[in-house]
Amino acid sequence: MTTLIKNGRVITATDDYIGDVFIDGEKIVGVGKTLPQTADRTIDASNKLVIPGAIDPHVHMELPFGGTVSSDDFKTGTIAAAFGGTTSIIDFAIQYKGKTFKETLDDWDSRAGPKCAIDYSYHLAVTEYEPRHKKEFAEVVERGITTFKIFLAYPGVFMIDDTTMFRVMQSAGEAGGMTLVHAENGIAIQQMIDNLVAEGKMEPKYHAQSRPPTMQADGVARALRVGEVANAPVFIVHVSCESAMNEIVRSRDEGNASFGETCTQYLFLNETYYDKPNFEGAKYVFTPPLVPKENIEPLWKGLKLGYLQEVSTDHCPFNFKGQKELGRGDFRKIPNGGPGVEDRLSLVYDGAMKRGFSLNKWVDLCSTASAKMFGMFPKKGTIAPGSDADIVIFDHNKERTISAKTHHMNCDYSLFEGMQIKGLPETVLSRGKVIIEDGQYKGTPGEGKFIRRGECAQL
Amino acid sequence: MTTLIKNGRVITATDDYIGDVFIDGEKIVGVGKTLPQTADRTIDASNKLVIPGAIDPHVHMELPFGGTVSSDDFKTGTIAAAFGGTTSIIDFAIQYKGKTFKETLDDWDSRAGPKCAIDYSYHLAVTEYEPRHKKEFAEVVERGITTFKIFLAYPGVFMIDDTTMFRVMQSAGEAGGMTLVHAENGIAIQQMIDNLVAEGKMEPKYHAQSRPPTMQADGVARALRVGEVANAPVFIVHVSCESAMNEIVRSRDEGNASFGETCTQYLFLNETYYDKPNFEGAKYVFTPPLVPKENIEPLWKGLKLGYLQEVSTDHCPFNFKGQKELGRGDFRKIPNGGPGVEDRLSLVYDGAMKRGFSLNKWVDLCSTASAKMFGMFPKKGTIAPGSDADIVIFDHNKERTISAKTHHMNCDYSLFEGMQIKGLPETVLSRGKVIIEDGQYKGTPGEGKFIRRGECAQL
Amino acid sequence: MTTLIKNGRVITATDDYIGDVFIDGEKIVGVGKTLPQTADRTIDASNKLVIPGAIDPHVHMELPFGGTVSSDDFKTGTIAAAFGGTTSIIDFAIQYKGKTFKETLDDWDSRAGPKCAIDYSYHLAVTEYEPRHKKEFAEVVERGITTFKIFLAYPGVFMIDDTTMFRVMQSAGEAGGMTLVHAENGIAIQQMIDNLVAEGKMEPKYHAQSRPPTMQADGVARALRVGEVANAPVFIVHVSCESAMNEIVRSRDEGNASFGETCTQYLFLNETYYDKPNFEGAKYVFTPPLVPKENIEPLWKGLKLGYLQEVSTDHCPFNFKGQKELGRGDFRKIPNGGPGVEDRLSLVYDGAMKRGFSLNKWVDLCSTASAKMFGMFPKKGTIAPGSDADIVIFDHNKERTISAKTHHMNCDYSLFEGMQIKGLPETVLSRGKVIIEDGQYKGTPGEGKFIRRGECAQL
Amino acid sequence: MTTLIKNGRVITATDDYIGDVFIDGEKIVGVGKTLPQTADRTIDASNKLVIPGAIDPHVHMELPFGGTVSSDDFKTGTIAAAFGGTTSIIDFAIQYKGKTFKETLDDWDSRAGPKCAIDYSYHLAVTEYEPRHKKEFAEVVERGITTFKIFLAYPGVFMIDDTTMFRVMQSAGEAGGMTLVHAENGIAIQQMIDNLVAEGKMEPKYHAQSRPPTMQADGVARALRVGEVANAPVFIVHVSCESAMNEIVRSRDEGNASFGETCTQYLFLNETYYDKPNFEGAKYVFTPPLVPKENIEPLWKGLKLGYLQEVSTDHCPFNFKGQKELGRGDFRKIPNGGPGVEDRLSLVYDGAMKRGFSLNKWVDLCSTASAKMFGMFPKKGTIAPGSDADIVIFDHNKERTISAKTHHMNCDYSLFEGMQIKGLPETVLSRGKVIIEDGQYKGTPGEGKFIRRGECAQL
Repeated sequence: MTTLIKNGRVITATDDYIGDVFIDGEKIVGVGKTLPQTADRTIDASNKLVIPGAIDPHVHMELPFGGTVSSDDFKTGTIAAAFGGTTSIIDFAIQYKGKTFKETLDDWDSRAGPKCAIDYSYHLAVTEYEPRHKKEFAEVVERGITTFKIFLAYPGVFMIDDTTMFRVMQSAGEAGGMTLVHAENGIAIQQMIDNLVAEGKMEPKYHAQSRPPTMQADGVARALRVGEVANAPVFIVHVSCESAMNEIVRSRDEGNASFGETCTQYLFLNETYYDKPNFEGAKYVFTPPLVPKENIEPLWKGLKLGYLQEVSTDHCPFNFKGQKELGRGDFRKIPNGGPGVEDRLSLVYDGAMKRGFSLNKWVDLCSTASAKMFGMFPKKGTIAPGSDADIVIFDHNKERTISAKTHHMNCDYSLFEGMQIKGLPETVLSRGKVIIEDGQYKGTPGEGKFIRRGECAQL
Repeated sequence: MTTLIKNGRVITATDDYIGDVFIDGEKIVGVGKTLPQTADRTIDASNKLVIPGAIDPHVHMELPFGGTVSSDDFKTGTIAAAFGGTTSIIDFAIQYKGKTFKETLDDWDSRAGPKCAIDYSYHLAVTEYEPRHKKEFAEVVERGITTFKIFLAYPGVFMIDDTTMFRVMQSAGEAGGMTLVHAENGIAIQQMIDNLVAEGKMEPKYHAQSRPPTMQADGVARALRVGEVANAPVFIVHVSCESAMNEIVRSRDEGNASFGETCTQYLFLNETYYDKPNFEGAKYVFTPPLVPKENIEPLWKGLKLGYLQEVSTDHCPFNFKGQKELGRGDFRKIPNGGPGVEDRLSLVYDGAMKRGFSLNKWVDLCSTASAKMFGMFPKKGTIAPGSDADIVIFDHNKERTISAKTHHMNCDYSLFEGMQIKGLPETVLSRGKVIIEDGQYKGTPGEGKFIRRGECAQL
Repeated sequence: MTTLIKNGRVITATDDYIGDVFIDGEKIVGVGKTLPQTADRTIDASNKLVIPGAIDPHVHMELPFGGTVSSDDFKTGTIAAAFGGTTSIIDFAIQYKGKTFKETLDDWDSRAGPKCAIDYSYHLAVTEYEPRHKKEFAEVVERGITTFKIFLAYPGVFMIDDTTMFRVMQSAGEAGGMTLVHAENGIAIQQMIDNLVAEGKMEPKYHAQSRPPTMQADGVARALRVGEVANAPVFIVHVSCESAMNEIVRSRDEGNASFGETCTQYLFLNETYYDKPNFEGAKYVFTPPLVPKENIEPLWKGLKLGYLQEVSTDHCPFNFKGQKELGRGDFRKIPNGGPGVEDRLSLVYDGAMKRGFSLNKWVDLCSTASAKMFGMFPKKGTIAPGSDADIVIFDHNKERTISAKTHHMNCDYSLFEGMQIKGLPETVLSRGKVIIEDGQYKGTPGEGKFIRRGECAQL
Repeated sequence: MTTLIKNGRVITATDDYIGDVFIDGEKIVGVGKTLPQTADRTIDASNKLVIPGAIDPHVHMELPFGGTVSSDDFKTGTIAAAFGGTTSIIDFAIQYKGKTFKETLDDWDSRAGPKCAIDYSYHLAVTEYEPRHKKEFAEVVERGITTFKIFLAYPGVFMIDDTTMFRVMQSAGEAGGMTLVHAENGIAIQQMIDNLVAEGKMEPKYHAQSRPPTMQADGVARALRVGEVANAPVFIVHVSCESAMNEIVRSRDEGNASFGETCTQYLFLNETYYDKPNFEGAKYVFTPPLVPKENIEPLWKGLKLGYLQEVSTDHCPFNFKGQKELGRGDFRKIPNGGPGVEDRLSLVYDGAMKRGFSLNKWVDLCSTASAKMFGMFPKKGTIAPGSDADIVIFDHNKERTISAKTHHMNCDYSLFEGMQIKGLPETVLSRGKVIIEDGQYKGTPGEGKFIRRGECAQL
């Protein structure tokens, strides 16, 4: 089966030309001004952008959290991702206490494998490190999973202490892996939560108040300095504020392999959303919380100047009805998370264009940088001979309004409800097969394959 | 009893004039160009500097540590201090597990009271915080002790966790007190120690290698950020490196009540001292350890520009024979600490003059700033009407060589052996009484009084 | 003639005690808790602050500028200063093209000498540097004038080029002097002025628009770097914005003798004042102009943390009627300057107390720091034996409203009209003589003496 | 004429794959894993890197300077460039006083056109700006020259003042152009030169001493701030030191279009080279001069982290004999400049690989970034359909020694004499034609074409 995408404006993280892309089976085999080959199928991409499929390196499908489960499973979540132009996700396989790494990954494989509509991988979230785990790091890397995640937040649930942080970073680094960190000072935050609760402050907005930016900056600084002495690369997830970002800049400037991402919600929303009436602020209860709007432009600047490497979603939806409502009267009981995997590529396009970013930078932020950082390049993240034919034909002139009424995520609200943006992923190919076309999903859940990842290529 | 000090060059943190100082009993009652009064005793200070008695806000007398006890008790240590021109010390009363704050302070009172040759106070080192301790903070402040100390280092011994750090800072702040922090990431350091030991690296120099500056910077950053969210003043003790100092500068610049000190050893010595043969490196095993010499001039600059507030000694001597030797073959067993209380005023004079500091700044660093920071001003720290007559007549032209052979500290070695310096505290008065004169101690141990301290006056 | 000031709360840059001050002739000869002496005159200062007379190191009396002359002459200006608690001023003797330094200073002497109500000095503003001037620097320093001023602004009037800047700094430094700099990029500003005029933008607010903070930061950075290579101390006058201040911080941190001041107007007012109707914005046309209000708290912070050394006024008043009005329809013709010498001590008291500064810091900012920076200490700037008896008895509880109706400056408006503040200089002594008492001026113009200044004591 | 480059490892600024490149005439028309086409000529690139032709955006061929002329003319210089894998240069057309921009460019065209072996463009160096020049900016941009250069150094020769700087930046920006700046404080440097000469210090090393890094930082800061108020993009050429680089970082961080480059000599050599005996230090007399070696790693870091955009050579050779010797006894008479155009691609390869840069980053620094910054992308700077077939087949395993004996530049010495490096540009194509092969130049001088450049694409 061969496919020819003709006359599109091909954009990679570097290139920008009008031309043809030829696909043979699952792979791109050639690109040219006007290719001489004929194909089984020809798609006309005139006046459209042809870009590598987007990669969302931070999602949580069907995650048990706070007494409930995130509302998108691997099927609904990956179909929604595909509608949004995302052809690869990296979920987090979370080690439960007492489990080996292998048991953890087998568990995740058993759930993701049969359902994924697009290719997938996991970061392994380590919540416990006993001597017996040390040798497992190499096995995990051997299995194609080269990133480990730790939490400095959520004491009593996922949080690990500095001993475990040091050991995970060191063991991961020695095995050729990188450690991702949810970096907040969970202990100090717990004290602030206790103080607020003692004062009877239970509304959603106190979730944000209990987690000020300075506690994120603290976590980031600590993680990066421990990474420095452990001589291991560290990647900070979901950076939401300028002060935390600046710690990454400082550490990298001092010569360390220090990296980070932000998420779409932090690029568009701000802490005033917690003031919405009727408990609607709960929709925006995720961690880290939204912060003052003064942080938004610095984050965009950080993306432009390379202070942060990519944009993910931290997609972890909970329905307002029945799930978010669990926390009425007690913000501590609101399940933490929000929907987003479907909206990212278009949102970043819209925001990046308004700020004068190049199209190349947009592709880099949504696809190429993640492919390189997380060891999937050049299989994923570019349009070049030999790469997987994960391709999005993007109608950059299409205007539309984001709404829960029309999105495909299994969540009864949208974080970006009513936002008018430009840009729609019109046709989406996953390894050569068209899975989104004419507003319809044309694939079969379970077709997505596990992506064996290699060593992280520092940019 | 009245005393008149005539014709000296009086130096305070601001002033500089030739004049007379008149003392009635324990107090300075007047200063003038040529005072008309006659006194029971007249001391001629011509061609000498007349300065407020120095204050060493960081000493550990007869401290049990590492299976032994620091070799100066409150008697020998305070007599040595007096010889060095220091007329007030602040020791650390360390809470043992299970003890109330009151029991801790009573214990220290019982040991210091009968022996001190000069005035004294304590910082209360909190190692345990149970709900019952909360109300004790106000009692401690009421008793005249307004500073609390916590350790982020020495896990299993003195180290507290971030929960306790937050609580102590908040409770101290609410009671009108300030929290002092030994700021190193004790957990990560423990990992590095374990790694070194596993590699059979047991010599004294590995003490330094296990505690790199970046782990101090980490501790400082964390302490200051937790102080920020606890809305409480924080003072970092024994800053030894530029990166840690810079975190104080950043935090203060952001509007926080963040302060710090360095110690004499960090202003003159560097990590190459650990390479001394015959286990002599053990003499320099204290915490934080000596660091690369590139840090020395930045620390002096920090003192000049107000990045750091004062210079202390962290005096905590152990004899080389019989004490330091406990760690032959295992650096972990070397008692941490060194002698210094006697040398500070002269060393800082020497170093400050070589770098073009004013005499006023020298007095500030050795006396006035500590009096203000730790709530003893204007009782201590200046020569002004109403202040205690703690006065040093300093012969700034006297050249001499520091040596264990001639010092008065109960320690068989000197950190500064053979160093040639200018400046000798010739005559020392404690509350109006001459206690050092003609190279002799003229006082009676036990004459020193407990100093009730008030709220810390931020400079 | 002897005077005894009894029972006041004496505040210096370091000290704070209740006591007596004894004055013999022009000098303070003693201070004490309760002095035994009797005096020809006794002043009761109970419940008042007794502080060293304030020093305003930046004023322009009867200055020809922009086709008119600043409206306070040395008589009216210094009497107003005295009412405000200021007992010393430093004016700027400005070299006119073709004049020697000596001629310039003789000219200023002839005008200031007969009229000054308080002690005075000048900075020598160099506008031309020919080889013949080189040897004059030492003569100027010998005469007791140790500070030289250059302008990087006002092309065609006072502005010098970088050649002259380098030469003045080098020659001043070699002679033991310091160079003060009006630091703005006058050339780029001229281009912006021309651009605005070409667009017909002639209202007062365009004065501010033509001189953005970044052009001040540029001038400051350039002056400090040229000072660095000329190996000479540099002091930046009238810093109005955070970015310019930060350049001083950076340069000093790099080891240079770099200093700066701000002025009262920048600590209280902001650029929105230019929007006042009826040409009233012209009242605030001075250089540098008022800037966005986001700069105000950073300037106060800079004063607190020692980033800036003191607060002056740049007093250079022009009446609204007849003078400011010269610029109706053309902001370039508005005489640059405003009144302020009378308000400083009280304004800084008010602002400093609201921000938790110590009384000592207030005294330092208004008096001591200037005395030290500009070579007048300990003659001026403190209350200590041997110092000039320039003393202010300050009623810190007195509430009052600033108004042109009640001020003594010869100017028909006040920059701070209607501002309610606390604190009044009640009684003012100049070298032992009461010159302000009961709201009356009791002195005789011409009594003020020229202050021979020595080398600048870097703080 | 078609050419097929088979089986090479194709590296662009993003991609990295084994494949074929098909060229039709002057253009790349397709790339693929295994292209089906046959070609007139097939080149086997197995085990070699296939990269876009390098671009040197900063050279001076046959430049009259200091009473002599740079020793490479457009023929010898561009042939040497081709040997080094460089297929495009940007020279500087320097306006002589009294000349229009058009006359300047016509002059350069007449000299470059007949001789260039590779494609070429110019930056227009403006040395005079009269009102009549204003309208010429648009004409220059229309002609395909979108970059303007100004000198803040060389007073009396090329230096312009701040008025002209502002005007050029504003006019260039309005015309869609960017201003390049040689940023040193030429005035202060002249003073330092005069001081050194007055002391009889005439050896080559005093060239360096007269131009300290802080004067470069000053020029950079000033240029970027004037660019900020002129609202125009600014590019700093030949950044040699960390402090100057940091000013670019600061300015870009503040939101300005601020960019910069460094040159090969600053990445490998340091100021100790001036101490070479027998006047050999003169070989390294160029501007800015070599600086202390502590700057080298920060510059590499700056390239890695995007603080600087690309690496050029500032190629401007003068023979040691007969040219450099003009300055024996007077460093001011040494012609400023050195050879380098031939060595860059290999040197940067070598240095970048040793520091763990990716191959992509190397290609970016030597080619792609310059193509984008200077408006030549995607015509130049990549291997993609539609781009010019400027291609280098690079033998990255070839070890060799740099020497004047073997280089092709018309200069009797090499800056990098004896340096052993890896990597040789084996085969070089210019617009589809092989011009370097088997160590021979196969082209015809004059074949190089003028490159019409468009607007600078900010990265």
